Amino acid sequence: MTPGPGVIDLNADLGESFGAWRLGDDEALLAVVTSANIACGFHAGDPLTIRRACAGAVAHGVRIGAQVSYRDLAGFGRREMDLPAEELTAELLYQIAALDGIARAEGGQVGYVKPHGALYNRCARDPAQAAALAAAISAYDRRLPLLTLPDSEAERAAAEAGLTVVAEAFADRAYRADGTLVPRGQPGALITDPATAAARVASMATSRMLPSLDGLEIPARFRSVCVHGDTAEAVALARAVREALERAGVKVAPFA
Amino acid sequence: MTPGPGVIDLNADLGESFGAWRLGDDEALLAVVTSANIACGFHAGDPLTIRRACAGAVAHGVRIGAQVSYRDLAGFGRREMDLPAEELTAELLYQIAALDGIARAEGGQVGYVKPHGALYNRCARDPAQAAALAAAISAYDRRLPLLTLPDSEAERAAAEAGLTVVAEAFADRAYRADGTLVPRGQPGALITDPATAAARVASMATSRMLPSLDGLEIPARFRSVCVHGDTAEAVALARAVREALERAGVKVAPFA
Amino acid sequence: MTPGPGVIDLNADLGESFGAWRLGDDEALLAVVTSANIACGFHAGDPLTIRRACAGAVAHGVRIGAQVSYRDLAGFGRREMDLPAEELTAELLYQIAALDGIARAEGGQVGYVKPHGALYNRCARDPAQAAALAAAISAYDRRLPLLTLPDSEAERAAAEAGLTVVAEAFADRAYRADGTLVPRGQPGALITDPATAAARVASMATSRMLPSLDGLEIPARFRSVCVHGDTAEAVALARAVREALERAGVKVAPFA
Amino acid sequence: MTPGPGVIDLNADLGESFGAWRLGDDEALLAVVTSANIACGFHAGDPLTIRRACAGAVAHGVRIGAQVSYRDLAGFGRREMDLPAEELTAELLYQIAALDGIARAEGGQVGYVKPHGALYNRCARDPAQAAALAAAISAYDRRLPLLTLPDSEAERAAAEAGLTVVAEAFADRAYRADGTLVPRGQPGALITDPATAAARVASMATSRMLPSLDGLEIPARFRSVCVHGDTAEAVALARAVREALERAGVKVAPFA
Repeated sequence: MTPGPGVIDLNADLGESFGAWRLGDDEALLAVVTSANIACGFHAGDPLTIRRACAGAVAHGVRIGAQVSYRDLAGFGRREMDLPAEELTAELLYQIAALDGIARAEGGQVGYVKPHGALYNRCARDPAQAAALAAAISAYDRRLPLLTLPDSEAERAAAEAGLTVVAEAFADRAYRADGTLVPRGQPGALITDPATAAARVASMATSRMLPSLDGLEIPARFRSVCVHGDTAEAVALARAVREALERAGVKVAPFA
Repeated sequence: MTPGPGVIDLNADLGESFGAWRLGDDEALLAVVTSANIACGFHAGDPLTIRRACAGAVAHGVRIGAQVSYRDLAGFGRREMDLPAEELTAELLYQIAALDGIARAEGGQVGYVKPHGALYNRCARDPAQAAALAAAISAYDRRLPLLTLPDSEAERAAAEAGLTVVAEAFADRAYRADGTLVPRGQPGALITDPATAAARVASMATSRMLPSLDGLEIPARFRSVCVHGDTAEAVALARAVREALERAGVKVAPFA
Repeated sequence: MTPGPGVIDLNADLGESFGAWRLGDDEALLAVVTSANIACGFHAGDPLTIRRACAGAVAHGVRIGAQVSYRDLAGFGRREMDLPAEELTAELLYQIAALDGIARAEGGQVGYVKPHGALYNRCARDPAQAAALAAAISAYDRRLPLLTLPDSEAERAAAEAGLTVVAEAFADRAYRADGTLVPRGQPGALITDPATAAARVASMATSRMLPSLDGLEIPARFRSVCVHGDTAEAVALARAVREALERAGVKVAPFA
Repeated sequence: MTPGPGVIDLNADLGESFGAWRLGDDEALLAVVTSANIACGFHAGDPLTIRRACAGAVAHGVRIGAQVSYRDLAGFGRREMDLPAEELTAELLYQIAALDGIARAEGGQVGYVKPHGALYNRCARDPAQAAALAAAISAYDRRLPLLTLPDSEAERAAAEAGLTVVAEAFADRAYRADGTLVPRGQPGALITDPATAAARVASMATSRMLPSLDGLEIPARFRSVCVHGDTAEAVALARAVREALERAGVKVAPFA
């Protein structure tokens, strides 16, 4: 998928509260992003939280994505799990369907799928789980795009299944010279200053190059930029990114 | 809904295994019943189990129902829970949607909704939870009928919401003179002999009268008969019921 | 148990985070209270959160209580559940044991049991569940006191089982003329102003009378006062209560 | 730990039902084995099931072991999970404590720890998770032995932590020439014929050699033999193994 020149989608995770536990500021984020990766209940997101997030997304004209995950509330979906492909496919199909039904009850619909946390990372490098993910999307609706890392096993599996892939870059994560992310925990891995992140994303969006931690510029393919939103600072960063994109003449809009 | 003369639907619970734990003989039941109340993951039913049950139902031409429940794996949905209407509605909507999406992936679709266990009993007498159930169905698809006890709060709430209600009788539960069920645990509450149950249901279906434990005949309104299927004996009972109905000239077919 | 004159225990809920979700400020509360009702994993409290709360309690010399609950993460233990006495007893025994083992690994131990949320309310009025609770404590260690509402079924069941009962009053909940709590949601039910709560508790502790919403003074029996701590304001209120008690010459100390 | 000549412990998994779902025949197994690996609630085993299994073990004089697991009811603990050592230790400590408290309420106590399923396999080869397991045992009670595979990372980590290790062999799994198990799913991996298994274990116990699938004899170090018991056939196999051992003059008794 070749991105239109100067058009960028901004995506963030939403609906990640669970019961009495609150996480993130969904309302604030919905005023900033164009795509909402809404939790589907397996790593976060009870049904009422999901329903409110869908209603909010519809009200703000934000595209709804199914943020599917391993079944792991205790680990917030951040722990890789080995499970048979057939089982993983069924687990993901269940989540997409549940979210889509709720979204439709609110006048919206699921517009894409994005794996969460450990599933995202695993599907980036494991052809078997990537194929299971693609199979779940195909089983539900083969018109749904997969939002994921470019040049990943997830991208390959989705393409092989005839699905549309939307590539994304990260606003607040540093890249290595080979285009992969600097692992969390290493120095410089996370960009927390709003102004720095904003300038970086504006530059990325206009040049289509990713700045590596070593100072290299890596040619990049992406149609969406992921921002995080689970802290007050993160919402400020997301806002700064959006404003910088608009000042740079980049149109901020959901992918088609 | 006035039942057509001599047409009876047979419904049973399916898809109630979970992970390594097996419960019921789905394959055997699918050869007997015309409607399958498939668990939706909240009291039983992992997604792969659900998917297989849906595939089986489609293969056998059996109608798929969403057997929605409280969120209670440890209690198999048999414990009443107090939760706000808005929350209950969202929990049930989530389940209907998840099941319908899986059913559609297998070439079927959810054709009705039936509450499970404690939710069934609670909605029979609690207008607030009954309304929350009706709201969930309305939010998802107001053409979906509710399968439930006649003359219950569930029936009233569904009718008020403009939903279709399908009334059911029980093949293997004794009735009191007022048409309510003899509570489990009381003498005579459960009918376990296949021949007895079969003769009883055939009589009920032709006379539209329920035999009470006291020997009375109670006028009855039902379009479906519920059989249980979680033991080998129960499958034999279900088979005997179906054969007796057919011998009595009653057509066994799903409701429209 | 007759309270010593002028000695009050302050208890609050701790360890109520779960995985990625944070709730309450355990560290701040541990500097204020003398007894910590630590969640046991059924309504909140993953094992690492529990372990840290135990370590903190030991470090601050705060008594550890087992805050046992229904199995209900999604509802934060706030939904009443019907379950057989034998099953409830086993569920509570499991929780007390788990917490005590973790407390002992940190050099402490469980010093009392307090039911959480809906279980607290249910055991206050339901003799069957109250007896199941008392049975769990007896099975684990009959020297453990039960911290609960005075004149409740929980108190009666514990006394019948030969257990010690410690009665509590509430710092931030209004009372009715009959000594019961004004239900949440009614006007005046919650006291949120730290100065008001502090003055009220100091008066209660010296007079042993509860001020009712109608302006009556109700004789009261309590050895502990419960403060809430799940918001920044609540921690400020707890601090104000403690300071007011100390200014009034009341000793703030755990019960024996 | 040098095994006494001609003394073998027989261990099997128990307490693996959950709520409405039954698994295994605990009562039958308790008449055969000398050590019961009782599930602790994370992969299986609700508290009432656990309590009954403990009561049964005490009644039969069978030693109780804590069969600790990843938190994974849906996967029955058969899916490897990556979690930080500190978190894993807390999760395992919680389980050991919960089981020990219930065992003590029934007049018994936890006598050893054995990891379940994927945790067993992972700890056999991953020093970090093995150390987390050893840390949990040490934190609870350093006199508790670890029952596990000889020459594994689990054995090494436990030894380093100063814990006792009890090595086990498998009655119904084939070995490769290097002493490792033939993976499930490969031809010959599972021994299902009771007579074959019985003869094999009797030979192993007297010769202290494991017969490999290639016909080699591998010197073996084990004090316990694991039998499975989740099917009627498995109970028959366990019985045959015990009878063969006794006929061969091997004493079947728990380890000290």
